[in-house]
Amino acid sequence: MEPAREPPIALVGFDADDTLWRSEDYFAQAQVEFERIIGRYVDLADSRARERLYAVEKGNLALFGYGVKGMALSMIEAAIGITDGRIDADDIQRILRMAKDMLDHPVELLPGVREAVEEIGATCELVLITKGDLFHQEAKVRQSGLGHLFPRIEIVSEKDPPTYARVLAEFGLPPQRFLMIGNSLRSDVAPVLALGGWAIHMPYHLTWEHELEADLGGNAWRMREAGRPAELPAAVRAIAALAARHASAA
Amino acid sequence: MEPAREPPIALVGFDADDTLWRSEDYFAQAQVEFERIIGRYVDLADSRARERLYAVEKGNLALFGYGVKGMALSMIEAAIGITDGRIDADDIQRILRMAKDMLDHPVELLPGVREAVEEIGATCELVLITKGDLFHQEAKVRQSGLGHLFPRIEIVSEKDPPTYARVLAEFGLPPQRFLMIGNSLRSDVAPVLALGGWAIHMPYHLTWEHELEADLGGNAWRMREAGRPAELPAAVRAIAALAARHASAA
Repeated sequence: MEPAREPPIALVGFDADDTLWRSEDYFAQAQVEFERIIGRYVDLADSRARERLYAVEKGNLALFGYGVKGMALSMIEAAIGITDGRIDADDIQRILRMAKDMLDHPVELLPGVREAVEEIGATCELVLITKGDLFHQEAKVRQSGLGHLFPRIEIVSEKDPPTYARVLAEFGLPPQRFLMIGNSLRSDVAPVLALGGWAIHMPYHLTWEHELEADLGGNAWRMREAGRPAELPAAVRAIAALAARHASAA
Repeated sequence: MEPAREPPIALVGFDADDTLWRSEDYFAQAQVEFERIIGRYVDLADSRARERLYAVEKGNLALFGYGVKGMALSMIEAAIGITDGRIDADDIQRILRMAKDMLDHPVELLPGVREAVEEIGATCELVLITKGDLFHQEAKVRQSGLGHLFPRIEIVSEKDPPTYARVLAEFGLPPQRFLMIGNSLRSDVAPVLALGGWAIHMPYHLTWEHELEADLGGNAWRMREAGRPAELPAAVRAIAALAARHASAA
């Protein structure tokens, strides 16, 4: 039984929002502000404001995709619906202002991210794979100061197995040599494991409901957890060792 | 003087909106509808409604980028401003509905596009290079039935020389072997010529003001015009012949 000749993991993918930098916090704050605005017109509990906003957002996902602009449009739609059209223009203006502030917000890297990415990048090729709004994501990558560590940025509209398969085909790599790091079981972990790749799940303190729905099937053995960015390099080494054993056993 | 060994043009880039399929028509219709809505509150001429909408859109471009969602948010902002907050929720709902209809609109290929793209694709590698909203553009490529002719789709946030240089670097090609086809002098023609590449300008009957601002410098000799898609294959051959003469003279 001969050991694999090449490093078992050739490419490490990083998710961006809530993996490298804060994002969901701002969406959560926007939701609180939305309820504060709506609460001046209706009883929040009686009107099931939160559930109705979520239903509008989910219903618009296929048309709007992810991101702040779609959020703002869904909030305006939900606000009109929940208040039966009584919401006034000033309050719609407030929702617009909130969206602009989010798009304009300085990037806040999670503590330890820069060092972790640099250490992992010293031995593996890196790629940033992120959902959401192209324009906003590019601005955040630029601002983050991490652009030079990510020579390739893949902004995708959905993180499913076909999308990851397409990205890997562009790199000419089999999934067995790819490791994905991210906070979403649904988007960063499950589809990569399903293809035969590896994953590190680094949970974020806030996660949008939609991203919690995931079925790892019998693939969880190809995943590790990391509690915070400083734990990522060791988790990458653990996965690399596992992948090496798996490759030499194959 | 030896002729160039390789085909002078190795890669042909196509713009998407208003080059392959209709797009600006829907934005123009949306603008008419916007004025119809606003006209119930103010005198359109007195209030300079059109100029104020354009100013809001241009002011938001750096935050929103291009596309229907940004248009809708700018229209809502402009509507509130122009009517001094008197616009009612039903009319804001109409703007939202209009945006959703645009995002949901079936793709309408320009006449002769399919045949032209197939003919050009028989001899050159093709890439789709398009601005705007990732989610919406991917949906249009899928629906258009042209996806198989464009194995690579580059959705970019701005079409300037650095963006084209990055795309060409990914293909490992010098600009001298790249030809771009599109309806915008500003986005499809000027930046490619500035890099030393070639371009075919195919004007569209409607063009957003912003896309008309362009300075071709002394580079116009590396551009040809096409009046409609059926003229594209001949224009590509003319550019290829010019590029071959230029390469052998160099």
